[in-house]
Amino acid sequence: MFATTSELISIISILGTVAFAFSAVLAASEKHSDILTVVVLGIVTAVGGGTTRDVLLGVPVFWSEELSYIWIAIASSIFGFVCVSFLKKHWVNTINLYVDAVAIAMFSIQGTQKAWSLGFGLPIGPIILGVITAVGGGVIRDVLIQRPTLLLSKELYAIPVTIGCILYSATLVYVPQLSDISAVIAIALVLYIRYLAIRKKVQVPKWASL
Amino acid sequence: MFATTSELISIISILGTVAFAFSAVLAASEKHSDILTVVVLGIVTAVGGGTTRDVLLGVPVFWSEELSYIWIAIASSIFGFVCVSFLKKHWVNTINLYVDAVAIAMFSIQGTQKAWSLGFGLPIGPIILGVITAVGGGVIRDVLIQRPTLLLSKELYAIPVTIGCILYSATLVYVPQLSDISAVIAIALVLYIRYLAIRKKVQVPKWASL
Amino acid sequence: MFATTSELISIISILGTVAFAFSAVLAASEKHSDILTVVVLGIVTAVGGGTTRDVLLGVPVFWSEELSYIWIAIASSIFGFVCVSFLKKHWVNTINLYVDAVAIAMFSIQGTQKAWSLGFGLPIGPIILGVITAVGGGVIRDVLIQRPTLLLSKELYAIPVTIGCILYSATLVYVPQLSDISAVIAIALVLYIRYLAIRKKVQVPKWASL
Repeated sequence: MFATTSELISIISILGTVAFAFSAVLAASEKHSDILTVVVLGIVTAVGGGTTRDVLLGVPVFWSEELSYIWIAIASSIFGFVCVSFLKKHWVNTINLYVDAVAIAMFSIQGTQKAWSLGFGLPIGPIILGVITAVGGGVIRDVLIQRPTLLLSKELYAIPVTIGCILYSATLVYVPQLSDISAVIAIALVLYIRYLAIRKKVQVPKWASL
Repeated sequence: MFATTSELISIISILGTVAFAFSAVLAASEKHSDILTVVVLGIVTAVGGGTTRDVLLGVPVFWSEELSYIWIAIASSIFGFVCVSFLKKHWVNTINLYVDAVAIAMFSIQGTQKAWSLGFGLPIGPIILGVITAVGGGVIRDVLIQRPTLLLSKELYAIPVTIGCILYSATLVYVPQLSDISAVIAIALVLYIRYLAIRKKVQVPKWASL
Repeated sequence: MFATTSELISIISILGTVAFAFSAVLAASEKHSDILTVVVLGIVTAVGGGTTRDVLLGVPVFWSEELSYIWIAIASSIFGFVCVSFLKKHWVNTINLYVDAVAIAMFSIQGTQKAWSLGFGLPIGPIILGVITAVGGGVIRDVLIQRPTLLLSKELYAIPVTIGCILYSATLVYVPQLSDISAVIAIALVLYIRYLAIRKKVQVPKWASL
């Protein structure tokens, strides 16, 4: 009846990669990009964060050993290119935002975990690499397409990810026996704040901005 | 009478590095850059793509073991800085575009070949790294100088490179005994599409853009 | 009475990291960034150059083994966020510019030295990596915040750093017994040119610009 944890992670990874690629298609459509640029941006958004993490860790980039991420990003980008008006429908975009939320929550936890397991700059290195894993691809996408990067937006996007990574990294380093429950709480927290941002339009509070 | 293949490759590498640096000088002249920025952009354009490829492959960056690329990029940038009005002459610019076309064709094949020989994410890894080798330096140049990157242009530039890399990578992986002839065809194809773009002003077709 | 050289280097490293983070706060304040973005930009500015250097060298990124740089960058960014009007005072900003000048001088020498000790592309590799160490973080900051990068400014910033790195690298490679005195001269030279730029508003001369 229920999927195992590893099956669940695989499903979220696939859906998350699709959501990342779709976000790139929407960004590319603002600039009337061609099909190759859409695919390039789809790949960059989907794997750019994890690639940056792996380069900083000094380990082989993950997709060189697991090409499915690239294939999914390419297929999603091409689908998105052909069906861009479908992607722009309000309900489709909303679903995509929620899938993206689940994905950034999970990818940030995975990135934190990978850095921690390699003993990379504990306790803060895993936080930094967790955040990079989740939002790095989106930042590179925005730089390549020359629109204001998500770092400059008032949307609650990188902030919930960072909170989740801080919580999870602290647990891994100081009370590792609680890491599973901490991962669940961190993901739930990211999802809840993203829900507030998407559904209730909650933004970064004024006192937290310059 | 005829140069050997390896001599031919050396000559094209040198001329291509010069052409890449000259393209950086022209980009820098739009922003009235100083001499150091011209040289920095010349180096970045000339070796940025191959450097990104080598970082992703996890191998030493190529120019740390073969500094001639850097020296040529510096010398060309300084020459271009002094003689910028010469570079802007229509016939000089046209020659530069054709030399650039030969260079991106050859560098993309070399990048594909290097990734393939290291078994990096076959069959799609070599395509991605081949494209990055050829156009990555130009993209970084555009980001640093804050003009729309070549990915956002309607010019047929990255598209022919990608087609060539797909053809060559597919041959290497599936029918390696044909790789030499495939390399020649891939380069000829890139050159032909670049010729159409430069001479006939053929652009990315409307149906292939959002 | 006098600090040892290694104590002096530690003090300058700390103050320089603070100055880099403060420059990021000032840049972020132009865009009304939120606290997380301020911290991200503070970290990127403080360690981005050295991180790029280490990735190109193929060695572990320095801050994964010496987290104090990250902690100082975070603390300085948060302090700067809270006290941004203090940072914008003319005399505070002037002090920050001078501390920044000392820091880029020293970091460029350290970066040159690290590349040279690894035999990276002598004699020009150390120059390139020295410059990247000192100004790379600022360039990434400017790209992420989408303002014209310091490479496009008329300010004498990257140029004195480059002159210092050329002098120091040449000494290391050709007359290593003079490397200590050369480091001092290189740092003094960078400081003097930065002093002319900050105090006397000396800019890149016209003949050195396109």
